[in-house]
Amino acid sequence: MENNLKDYISQYYKIRKKMKTLYYVMNVVYFDAATVAPPKSYIERGEYMGILSEDVYKLKTSDEFVNIVEKLYESKNQLDLDFAHEITLLKEEIEQAKKIPMDEMIEFEKTLNEAQVKWEEAKHKSDFSIFQPFLEKIVEYKRKEVKYLETEEFKGYDVLLNMFERGYTQIEYDEFFNVIKEELVPFVKQVCAVKKQNFPFSKMMYEKTKQEEVAKYMGDVLCFDFSKGSMAETEHPFTWNTNNHNVRITNHFHENDFASSLFSAIHEFGHALYEQNVDDKFNDTFIGGGVSMAMHESQSRFYENVIGRNYAFWKIHYPKIQEIYQEQLKNVSLDDFYQYINNVEASFIRTEADELTYPLHVMLRYELEKELISGTLEVKDLEKAWNNKIKEYFGLEVPCSAMGVLQDSHWSGGSIGYFPTYALGSAISAQLYYNMQEEFDVIQSLKEGNTKDINNWLKEKIHKFGSSKYPKEILEKALNGKFDAKYYIQYLKEKYSKIYSI
Amino acid sequence: MENNLKDYISQYYKIRKKMKTLYYVMNVVYFDAATVAPPKSYIERGEYMGILSEDVYKLKTSDEFVNIVEKLYESKNQLDLDFAHEITLLKEEIEQAKKIPMDEMIEFEKTLNEAQVKWEEAKHKSDFSIFQPFLEKIVEYKRKEVKYLETEEFKGYDVLLNMFERGYTQIEYDEFFNVIKEELVPFVKQVCAVKKQNFPFSKMMYEKTKQEEVAKYMGDVLCFDFSKGSMAETEHPFTWNTNNHNVRITNHFHENDFASSLFSAIHEFGHALYEQNVDDKFNDTFIGGGVSMAMHESQSRFYENVIGRNYAFWKIHYPKIQEIYQEQLKNVSLDDFYQYINNVEASFIRTEADELTYPLHVMLRYELEKELISGTLEVKDLEKAWNNKIKEYFGLEVPCSAMGVLQDSHWSGGSIGYFPTYALGSAISAQLYYNMQEEFDVIQSLKEGNTKDINNWLKEKIHKFGSSKYPKEILEKALNGKFDAKYYIQYLKEKYSKIYSI
Repeated sequence: MENNLKDYISQYYKIRKKMKTLYYVMNVVYFDAATVAPPKSYIERGEYMGILSEDVYKLKTSDEFVNIVEKLYESKNQLDLDFAHEITLLKEEIEQAKKIPMDEMIEFEKTLNEAQVKWEEAKHKSDFSIFQPFLEKIVEYKRKEVKYLETEEFKGYDVLLNMFERGYTQIEYDEFFNVIKEELVPFVKQVCAVKKQNFPFSKMMYEKTKQEEVAKYMGDVLCFDFSKGSMAETEHPFTWNTNNHNVRITNHFHENDFASSLFSAIHEFGHALYEQNVDDKFNDTFIGGGVSMAMHESQSRFYENVIGRNYAFWKIHYPKIQEIYQEQLKNVSLDDFYQYINNVEASFIRTEADELTYPLHVMLRYELEKELISGTLEVKDLEKAWNNKIKEYFGLEVPCSAMGVLQDSHWSGGSIGYFPTYALGSAISAQLYYNMQEEFDVIQSLKEGNTKDINNWLKEKIHKFGSSKYPKEILEKALNGKFDAKYYIQYLKEKYSKIYSI
Repeated sequence: MENNLKDYISQYYKIRKKMKTLYYVMNVVYFDAATVAPPKSYIERGEYMGILSEDVYKLKTSDEFVNIVEKLYESKNQLDLDFAHEITLLKEEIEQAKKIPMDEMIEFEKTLNEAQVKWEEAKHKSDFSIFQPFLEKIVEYKRKEVKYLETEEFKGYDVLLNMFERGYTQIEYDEFFNVIKEELVPFVKQVCAVKKQNFPFSKMMYEKTKQEEVAKYMGDVLCFDFSKGSMAETEHPFTWNTNNHNVRITNHFHENDFASSLFSAIHEFGHALYEQNVDDKFNDTFIGGGVSMAMHESQSRFYENVIGRNYAFWKIHYPKIQEIYQEQLKNVSLDDFYQYINNVEASFIRTEADELTYPLHVMLRYELEKELISGTLEVKDLEKAWNNKIKEYFGLEVPCSAMGVLQDSHWSGGSIGYFPTYALGSAISAQLYYNMQEEFDVIQSLKEGNTKDINNWLKEKIHKFGSSKYPKEILEKALNGKFDAKYYIQYLKEKYSKIYSI
């Protein structure tokens, strides 16, 4: 290696370390704000975070750093593969950033700040008209952004989709959601028509400390390493990490809904295991975290649904849960518990939807986003379009905006193109399950209380690579082939036909 | 004001804002590390914090900043009083820093890192010889530091004392501890000789969630503003703040010792109220926090002891505590509860000592530190000297090093001169009480459940000034005169003579 190149590398390392430091502290401050910081602490936080964001931005766009990245990119054949990938991603990121006029970006950031507040108000008052003008601005900006960033390969909505899940465009998603529409929508109707049993135990009170105990137990069961991770409480559960030895999940505890904290915990542990299993060598790099949104969601959904709503899993763990919640569950059979945690119902709220109806909620959002970006739908007609689709897919009348078009925060945060990854991730988790099953008997492992083999399989196939390869590359190797929605349909139909004797 | 001066001020504000930002994030990271961060997260934290500390150091000692401070100092008559004080303090700080050779300071930082680890090991194994060589290095450095920083006014140990409590030297402390020795040591012996009753309820189990509820109740009772503050859990309780609207206390919860979390909460709320009551105008400055160690301790001890162990206070609040702990306390009378929380016993551990014996623990450390710095005592003889003093003041034989000379972390952290402020603070709290009593009937307020008047008095006399004046200046105005240990003795003797019918 030339001396010149070595110098560039060491300069790069130095600036990267500084950027990592700033990301780290901003990340910790974010976590602090979401957990323990008092309400009025927002006063100085915004200002201080603004100062640090500016530092990061200056470092990243400085002539010095851009030049170093360029030089390293030119010599990338001499770099090891992982490092070359890191440089390639950074180069792309810098090039993209250059295409958007700075003043428009800053203006958009301001719009988002306002939009967030207005969305909250609109949701609170259940009045879409409050949020509408802000969503109009967001959609307008997104249409412009698409124009700035369009390439030969990616046009229109594809530009946004590709931001959240690299390599996935309307071609792939249309194919995917068509299968959902043809195969799943009628099946959901069939399942929803079955008369459901009542679960009186689900309405009982479950003490918060016991719910915490259950969540902790789940962490141990699923091989979450508490020396490299922890748990905290927030209104909306999320997973947080700086690198593989500092990974946290948060949870909420509703005393009248034990299942909520239980499945939130399992879901977030799925995300967290992914992060804990990334190879140590990526800790100091920019390619250390999970590779993409859909891949991340495939892991959380794998744990939440494929494992966490599996009969074999509960056969071994239900007695423990029953012991902790003895007062409430002592007379509840495993079969009733299993039936309850897999209860299917047409509903309004995506985040509370069951495993089977969930992808329909996502499909609806995908279809609307596509139309919004292409211009065949305007924001003023969005609510009507939303309500029509709820009627079409679930046969339900949306009772108010808060339970309809205003329910999610994503659009107010400027995220258009994000939703589809949720369904894609769920579908990938099913295909991973069948692939895993070919290598060892997953159900048998669950019956034996062995989640280690599952965790290891995912680690070796997916987790350990972090973001050191493109998501499709990792995925197709893990799947021994291409993504195919048929596995998802097969998985859901097999499972729910049995549960509802259809 | 000249334009030149205006320029310096605006440059100063800019650098100060940057420094405040760095202090803020380092502070949040510290809190995160003490509360929710997983064990192995220390790996990157040390490195990242090192990078930010260096940034702070560079900003503070940069020619640019030093020059600005010099220029502002020269024009301090044109600045408003608070700002002039801030600049004066900074100027002194910069001048002090210049007197110590950089390489020796860095070397000392390394020693402290090692010493911390070795002290923990030594305490764990209860073996002073493990820690001894490191404490020798620390004392050696401190003796050198004293030489570097000596002035006409402050010599020897005074240099260190003055670092923790400005304006207090051996003259003041000797006078203070002489009174303690003459008046209190014999009184303690008398009280310890009284046969004590048993308190079986103190040994019962108290659920953690209920202890948390009690702590929260105490926060409300003492006027802690939860919109500007919060609570978290750590092994050792502490108070944390960035400014007056971000103040937190931490607590520990031992299920077999309800009094521990109760009085830790009251103590820390005392510190926290001080910070919450600092005037808003100091939030963006360097003179926003509590003014000194003894002043801070005077507030925490005032709340913990003068209020928190007062009969009138419990007359109104005990029923609530009894209601929360109904299982354990339903048959315990207010008198028994009061007797228990004021139980006096000769003991080994300072942090667990009662109100009356506490200052003796501090005096012992003061006497030893004084000798260590003057050179009349060497570290190798420290343990023997410690044990002799425990025998002398308490009539006890120290059973092991962990319960003796190794119990506190202060010396391993390089803090020599800190301990005396604990006793001074306690003594100040008693004098404040008598002064307050002259303005309104404190006991009557407590009987009426009114802590607001007390809080306001302390706010107006002490809290609101933050560090905008020297501690003695604030104190002597609040006391309407000089500090005098006689009030402390009077307070303790009055109270405990009554409790023990002496």
